Formats: sequence, C-alpha cells, structure tokens
Amino acid sequence: MQTQSYAIIGAGALGGFYGARLQQAGCEVHFLLRHDCERVRQHGWVIDSKDGDFKLPQVHAYAEVRDMPPCDVVAVALKSTQNHLLAQLLPPVLKKDGIVLVMQNGLGIEEEIARLVPGHRILGALCFIASNKIGPGHIHHLDYGQIKLAEHATDNRPRGVTEAMRRIGADFQRAGIPVELAADLRTARWQKLVWNIPYNGLSVVLNADTSELMANENSRLLVEEIMLEVAAAATACGSPFDHSFIKVMLATTDRMKPYRASMKIDCDLRRPMEIEAIYGNPLRAAAQAGVTALRIETLYRQLKFIDAQNRNG
Amino acid sequence: MQTQSYAIIGAGALGGFYGARLQQAGCEVHFLLRHDCERVRQHGWVIDSKDGDFKLPQVHAYAEVRDMPPCDVVAVALKSTQNHLLAQLLPPVLKKDGIVLVMQNGLGIEEEIARLVPGHRILGALCFIASNKIGPGHIHHLDYGQIKLAEHATDNRPRGVTEAMRRIGADFQRAGIPVELAADLRTARWQKLVWNIPYNGLSVVLNADTSELMANENSRLLVEEIMLEVAAAATACGSPFDHSFIKVMLATTDRMKPYRASMKIDCDLRRPMEIEAIYGNPLRAAAQAGVTALRIETLYRQLKFIDAQNRNG
Repeated sequence: MQTQSYAIIGAGALGGFYGARLQQAGCEVHFLLRHDCERVRQHGWVIDSKDGDFKLPQVHAYAEVRDMPPCDVVAVALKSTQNHLLAQLLPPVLKKDGIVLVMQNGLGIEEEIARLVPGHRILGALCFIASNKIGPGHIHHLDYGQIKLAEHATDNRPRGVTEAMRRIGADFQRAGIPVELAADLRTARWQKLVWNIPYNGLSVVLNADTSELMANENSRLLVEEIMLEVAAAATACGSPFDHSFIKVMLATTDRMKPYRASMKIDCDLRRPMEIEAIYGNPLRAAAQAGVTALRIETLYRQLKFIDAQNRNG
Repeated sequence: MQTQSYAIIGAGALGGFYGARLQQAGCEVHFLLRHDCERVRQHGWVIDSKDGDFKLPQVHAYAEVRDMPPCDVVAVALKSTQNHLLAQLLPPVLKKDGIVLVMQNGLGIEEEIARLVPGHRILGALCFIASNKIGPGHIHHLDYGQIKLAEHATDNRPRGVTEAMRRIGADFQRAGIPVELAADLRTARWQKLVWNIPYNGLSVVLNADTSELMANENSRLLVEEIMLEVAAAATACGSPFDHSFIKVMLATTDRMKPYRASMKIDCDLRRPMEIEAIYGNPLRAAAQAGVTALRIETLYRQLKFIDAQNRNG
C-alpha cells in the first residue's frame, strides 16, 4: 500500500501530537504552525507522552501554505474559531483527490468545509485526548489519545465504513493511536457533544474542573440534565441514543483524573472559545428539528457573554 | 395617633438605615446587631445618604433579644439565609398584638414566619434601595429607598389595604421614605422577583454588574428570557402581569448607574447567598402550579454550586 502524505493545518497540542506520531510511524508529514514555526523547523518536536517520551529533530514546518506541497490528507487541527481562514488555507495544500480530515470538536464543520472544497472527501476524526502545549515545539500528552473516524455525507446520513477511512485509520494505528471506524459521523459527533456541551461550558461558567463538577450534587445534576437535552436534540436530528450512553459518560468522568476542559483552558488564557461549533451549531440544528434545549441555550448565552468580556480585556 | 415602637432584627445596611430613619422621625426603635453592637451602643449610627447625611449618637442597641423590650412592630431585616434563627429571635420581642414586618427579598418567607408566630399579623415590606455598610455603625445610602407595603394572608390571596399597613406606612412616610401600599403581597413579591431573579444570579455567575449585563446582546436577551419565565411562573401561581411590566424593568435598569446586585456583594464577600428565598421557593411554587422554568432552574443549580465552593473556601 502506498503511503499517504499528511498536512497538519494548525499544529498545536492536538495537531502537533498526532502529526508527530504519524511521522514517527513513517508517514510524510507537513506542519503549518502559526507561532513556533522557526523553532520547530530548527529543533523539531519534543513530545512528553504517557506512552513514552520522544523527539523528532527534523520535521517539515511552514508558516505559509504557499510553501507547502499538496498532500493526500489535510488534517484540520486549528481551533474552530479560526475556521474563517480555511478558505485560504485548504485549497493550496489539498491534492486533486486529497481528503480533508476534520480533527475539531462540534457540529456542522464538515458542511462548511464541503462548501470550500467541493468534490473532496471529508472525514471527521473525533479525538479523545488530553494534551497541552507546554513550550515552543514542546507538547505534553497527558492521557487518552484514541480517535474515532467517520466519513461525511452531504445528506448527513451514515456513510458506512469507507476505503478512505480504512487507509487513514491504518496510518494512525501504525502510529500507535487506537482507532475506531464509525459508520455514522453525525451520531459520533452528537455523542461526543454529550460530554463536551456540559463539561466545557460549566467548567468555564463555574470556574471548575471535572471532579469539582461531579462532586457537587447540583452541578452533577445539571450535567446530567444537559446531557439529556443533548440526547433529545440528537434524537430529533436523526441520531438517537439512549440513557445508558449518558450513564457511561458520567461513570467515565467519575473515573477521570480532575480535568480542565479545553474551553476552560482557552478561557483562562483569554483565547476565543469554540462556542459556535460546540453550542451554536447544535442549538440551530435542534431548533431546525423543532427541539428547544433551554439549559444549553442558557449556557450558550452565558459563554457568549464571557467570551466577549475576555476580548474586551 | 399613638406612636408605635419598632424592633429591627438584623440592623445591617438595610435594617440599620430604615431603623435610623424611623428613630430620626421620632419613633422608638430598638436595634439587634450581630457584629457592631458595642460600637453602635456607644457612638450610634452614622448615615451617609444621597438625601443628606445624618448622625444618631444615641440609639438602643442590643446583642441579645432577651435584653430587648417587646415591640409593636418587629422588622425582620436579617439575610434570609439566617431565618432559621427567627424561631428564637422573634417571639421575645413581639408584643402580644405585635406585627411582623418582613423586609427581605424572595418568596415564601411570610408563610414560614406565620408558622413561628401564629395569630400575629405579618406584613411584607419590599425595599427598593441601594445601601452598603462601609464601617462599624456606618451606612452608605447610595440610591432609591422607597418601600412597598402589603399584608400577608394565609391563603395568599390579596388582603387589600389594611389599617396595620396604613399605620406603619405613615411612620415610614414621616421618616422621609416613599411608601406604596399594595393590596396583593404575593403579586408584589413576584414583581420584585422579575428584577431579582435575573440580575442577582447572572451578576454572580457572569461576574458582572447591571450595566455590563445590559450592554451585551446575549446576556441582555437572557435577562429578558428569564424575566418571561418569572412572569409565566407568577401567572401560573395566580399573580399575572404582562410583558409591558418587563419592558419597564429593562428600561429602568438601563437608566440605573452600574449596580452590583446584593447577591453579587454577598458572593464577593463569601457570605451565604439568598438562593432559596429568591430561587428555590419560587421554583417550588412554580412546580406546584405545573410550570417549569428551565433557565431559572439552571441558574439555581449554578448558584448552589458557587455557594458551596465559597463555603469550602
């Protein structure tokens, strides 16, 4: 099997880690970096990982897409708040039959990208990972790491397990990343939202980590009520799942080490929060399906306020 | 007309101010203080007021109710989080035909007090005032000051304007406090909740003053949506009022100087917040009337979490 070349658009704590793993496994990888480009070009990546630390002294690092070669797979690993840049960033690095791999959270992103690069296959990669950037070119992979791959369909129906998914999944597997191939991207995204919607928003609004949210009876109940709203919205949008899935999410979070959700980290650093991808798009999808989710909507408005205050300094 | 004697249970920024005004107007007033008793006994009150500063060098100040004489009117001006103390505090200072005047925010307090002192008339005084304690025995009256008086009825129906209301209202009027006599206590309380429920809770959760909440389109919309939930709950509980009242509340708040709601002050000082009186009791009343108020319930759970975190240090 011919190896595929990868472009990582936005090589931060997530894109940098997965890209480094792919390169380590023998793939050709090209990294687009906003901040640490010069550093990474000269010294490569330093990865502290719970699975074993490693270094990649030589990597292809770029500050501009015009310097990058077109690739077989273009992984979108920017924060979704930067997605307005994709119209400029994507076309130059995407081979004629290249595939876009969306490594972001939230709903509706594949639809937006499909409009930018019509005719290209688009895959979603749901990343279950705790990783932080702790210095220039230096990433700390704390926990987890597995991804769930699924392919986008224009009509949002299940696409099944495709050859493109298998090929990309095999590369990640070879790189030591546990991979699950899922037939239905939309349902996979809603299921990830069951976790992301309550914990990201409440951690910001209540200034708390996951263990604090789980330890208090009121916040714990609110987490579960919000999860039920996500499930009702998902069901109305054609992605039903039952209460047992929610119980598994709660139990999994109970077992996690105290964890600061990514939106909380963004908030603390006064970076833009991924509110539209994780809240706005799901709420609009639910509304289109005739479902209101008032707790989620309340959280959405609160987050929009906090985000605006952060930007105003 | 014979003058009435007043006991002020909990002479803080609110009870201290109104009690001082009543004494200034010639009433006999007895103050129960938790913290500044010795200071106030020796030096009296110093009031900085937007209506003119004044001092009362000699006042009756007490640390214990057993030292106080029974009074005609016993004003309850504690924080409602302290109401578990009223079973001990009220009976000793209440004359046989004495009246209880509840100067607290929230719903359901008169019912609780009626169980403690059966057979006594209970009036609610809704206080529209911005005042802070700025030192021992030293109160700053920043703005407003008017009160709305209404009498509690066991069946929660409108009691009309009673003789007891007129007598107490006259004392306050003589003390320079604008007074409105209202026929329906329950509706008056719900109408005050239209302001208190959105602004108190959101100011705590979003760390904001009133002007910040009004300036951002998302928080402003959330304020209005929460007001509509209060109106729906009030209507279901037999106290209907229309959307024009909400518009007046919003316009009034737009004209206010930036204001830190009392619950926000309590939160910042890590004092217990009046969550049950302002949120828990109205939510339970609404639920009994078959109405859910999910935005208010979300805020309630968030506040309970923050309150618990404050107490845990």
